[in-house]
Amino acid sequence: MSRVRVLIRPKAGILDPQGQTVERALPALGFEGVSNVHVGRLVELDVEDPAQVPAMCEKLLANPLIEDYEIQ
Amino acid sequence: MSRVRVLIRPKAGILDPQGQTVERALPALGFEGVSNVHVGRLVELDVEDPAQVPAMCEKLLANPLIEDYEIQ
Repeated sequence: MSRVRVLIRPKAGILDPQGQTVERALPALGFEGVSNVHVGRLVELDVEDPAQVPAMCEKLLANPLIEDYEIQ
Repeated sequence: MSRVRVLIRPKAGILDPQGQTVERALPALGFEGVSNVHVGRLVELDVEDPAQVPAMCEKLLANPLIEDYEIQ
């Protein structure tokens, strides 16, 4: 069993409304100097065969049309 | 400016329905040997002052009652 972490992000050029909302909300809470905010998903799982993880990402964990994934 | 990554996860013992759903869906797609699946959020941002990030997590990015966060 190995523990795998998958980071899933909106592709460049795809709208990221959660990121925009966070970026607008932070100055209102007194946090200045923040930019380029992106919100994605984090999936962590124990797998017997880490070679299967890219296929899991393509088929279930991410939407490859609009999201990029990074396996760690 | 430094690029900061925040990983946000459900606290241990807190229900993780997204993780449970993924864990049940993977065998149906032919992926066996997967367990302990957790789904969280990923926030990446450019900040002028990285020392402010823990306060951002406490006030906006995470819900500290039910989520843990890890700053990278």
